[in-house]
Amino acid sequence: MEEILKNVKEASRVIATLNGEVKRKVLREMANRIEKYKDEIIEANKKDLEYAKENNLSEALIDRLLLNEDRVKSMANALRDIAKLKDPVGKVIDGWKIDNGLSINKVKIPIGVIGIIYESRPNVTSDAAGLCFMSGNACILKGGKEAFHSNAVIIEILRYVLEKNKLPVDAISMLPDYSRSGVEWLIKQDKYVDLIIPRGGEALIKFVSENSKVPVIKHDKGLCHVYVHKDADLEKAVKIAINAKVQRPGVCNAMETLLVDREIAGEFLPKIKEEMEKNEVELRGCEIALEYIDIKPATEEDWHTEYLDKVLSIKVVDNLDDAIEHIEKYGSGHSDAIVTENYSVAEEFLNRVDSACVYVNASTRFTDGGVFGFGAEVGISTNKLHARGPMGIDDLTTYKYKILGNGQIRE
Amino acid sequence: MEEILKNVKEASRVIATLNGEVKRKVLREMANRIEKYKDEIIEANKKDLEYAKENNLSEALIDRLLLNEDRVKSMANALRDIAKLKDPVGKVIDGWKIDNGLSINKVKIPIGVIGIIYESRPNVTSDAAGLCFMSGNACILKGGKEAFHSNAVIIEILRYVLEKNKLPVDAISMLPDYSRSGVEWLIKQDKYVDLIIPRGGEALIKFVSENSKVPVIKHDKGLCHVYVHKDADLEKAVKIAINAKVQRPGVCNAMETLLVDREIAGEFLPKIKEEMEKNEVELRGCEIALEYIDIKPATEEDWHTEYLDKVLSIKVVDNLDDAIEHIEKYGSGHSDAIVTENYSVAEEFLNRVDSACVYVNASTRFTDGGVFGFGAEVGISTNKLHARGPMGIDDLTTYKYKILGNGQIRE
Repeated sequence: MEEILKNVKEASRVIATLNGEVKRKVLREMANRIEKYKDEIIEANKKDLEYAKENNLSEALIDRLLLNEDRVKSMANALRDIAKLKDPVGKVIDGWKIDNGLSINKVKIPIGVIGIIYESRPNVTSDAAGLCFMSGNACILKGGKEAFHSNAVIIEILRYVLEKNKLPVDAISMLPDYSRSGVEWLIKQDKYVDLIIPRGGEALIKFVSENSKVPVIKHDKGLCHVYVHKDADLEKAVKIAINAKVQRPGVCNAMETLLVDREIAGEFLPKIKEEMEKNEVELRGCEIALEYIDIKPATEEDWHTEYLDKVLSIKVVDNLDDAIEHIEKYGSGHSDAIVTENYSVAEEFLNRVDSACVYVNASTRFTDGGVFGFGAEVGISTNKLHARGPMGIDDLTTYKYKILGNGQIRE
Repeated sequence: MEEILKNVKEASRVIATLNGEVKRKVLREMANRIEKYKDEIIEANKKDLEYAKENNLSEALIDRLLLNEDRVKSMANALRDIAKLKDPVGKVIDGWKIDNGLSINKVKIPIGVIGIIYESRPNVTSDAAGLCFMSGNACILKGGKEAFHSNAVIIEILRYVLEKNKLPVDAISMLPDYSRSGVEWLIKQDKYVDLIIPRGGEALIKFVSENSKVPVIKHDKGLCHVYVHKDADLEKAVKIAINAKVQRPGVCNAMETLLVDREIAGEFLPKIKEEMEKNEVELRGCEIALEYIDIKPATEEDWHTEYLDKVLSIKVVDNLDDAIEHIEKYGSGHSDAIVTENYSVAEEFLNRVDSACVYVNASTRFTDGGVFGFGAEVGISTNKLHARGPMGIDDLTTYKYKILGNGQIRE
């Protein structure tokens, strides 16, 4: 396997120097070929589905695994979308001249080799490969073993297009070892791999972050809060809370806990109960909330739980400090919102809450690379370093200093 | 010890929101107090020096440990310099409005709690604390046990000034366990520590990078090259090579290996030999170099060695490709230079060499936060992510998105 990574590293040096027009052309050809060979992809996917059924994998997992004509078309279109992105490589982010005439330019360059570890969805294979390629990086992919046949066909198609364009096929590689020990090995290869991005369940992300020698950018859980301050416009508050909870409950930027100022609890809680129940949301409240509305009591565990479902915990707080304390203790630093018409309180919330995205009077559901205008999204980073929040291909680059002299030496 | 980190984390939330003028005032008071208590510092330092002598520590180490009146004054002045830096916190690095009217602002904020692990020099204690404080971060310092008494007095002075200004003293904390197991414990505390910066020998850095659960920014070795291309101005080449090797051989941006094109080896090597020997540099050459000049033969190990001394390995290469291949194989991605008058070759070198700083016609010795204009320097990062190359206090920040709405929900 080390030989494979060596080849990926070598390929990365070639991919790093490609011009935008070449990368766009290759990505469009990949998209066309995926469409052309849709039957072969769907055929391979059937094998994976059979295996999944034989092994009694869950319905949800089987749905994530499934490729049909529509989904294959989406894969192709995702590559076409990536081909339209602005090439981040070569952007001069800063530049200046120092006193002795040396000209210093800080220039964006690809990171090198990116390892992406993911689970069932086979479309991640082409998405991840495309994002890495457009940003000038080689990638080593480690998919789920349940998607083995689908991934193999997709990778073959992508590599065929590289070869046809006289580019090193190893720039898009799949780790042959699909097991957990494959992951364990990959995350130790800091000689060849420059960045690991794990996408998947909490257990995978925890394992990778705790054991990797390669830097990791995590896409971890989102335990998002909406805090309804006493000076909130309660109509806005209901709209925002409902949207944050029910518009798509299964994603990381959905709200899990609603914080409500005690001063307005009597007015607001019955309203929100009615609306949430219309939307079939199960409510669990703190002791004080239970004084105002008749719902299930929340336990300590509820405040820690990312339901990813139509369940909401509700806590009554005394004031802003109390709300921020709760968010600090239980939040995941992803997205948190306040609803208030009070300028100073809004400012304080924005400044003091240490999350990737902090909102005033808007739904947490906007934390998304597409919404932010980054185009195709690598994910939403819960790291604090390098990339935080929605992550576009810009974040798949690093920089170097190019320094131009005419004989300068240091005195 | 966990209690200590909890307090540091809590203090970090207060420090993060301080305005620039407060931070500057506190830093200047710290500088004054260090000068005022110089005798106490020097007295404590004597205890450390005695212990060092009793334990037969090396002369070099004892010199690094030593504090005299001049050095204490330098420590105070370093804090005054830090107080003059531009406050990075609050800078809006990007901002835009999306179609539904949401206004998105990407704003620099402190990282949180920074752990700095270092060895003998006691001045690092005040430098590191000052840099973290000015960038709004709390710090947990882990100094060398040989500097225990000096560090204790310095920390006490800094914390006194925090207290006097009604700021949480735990924002500048020292880990009480000075042993290796203290390091081992600290680098696992990802719940409280957001970034670890190890400063010291290769063994320390390797241990920290391989075992840390907290993200690490390394300041690793510099195995820097100067490549004299056949179209070089040989006078410039001699001047640059001499400067890169001898102006200060013991630092990471000094040259360790000189690469010379075969076409000019006959003319250049005797010249450089003469100049290097005038400067008492020991030369070790590849087989081909030995055909032109009478020096010691280099072994494979030489190409891997950061001498940090007046020793230089010399290799004759066939061309640019050959030179880049050598740099890729043996370099450390720190600083590498080409000397050439050829435009296309210079461009290719700049683009293809994957180092933090790539030079044309200048000495590698310029890789330095001070030279680059960053003011006081955190170090020179050999990481590829977050911060690369000379690192100023700007790199001790991350960012968050502040998103201002008026009731927007996602459709």
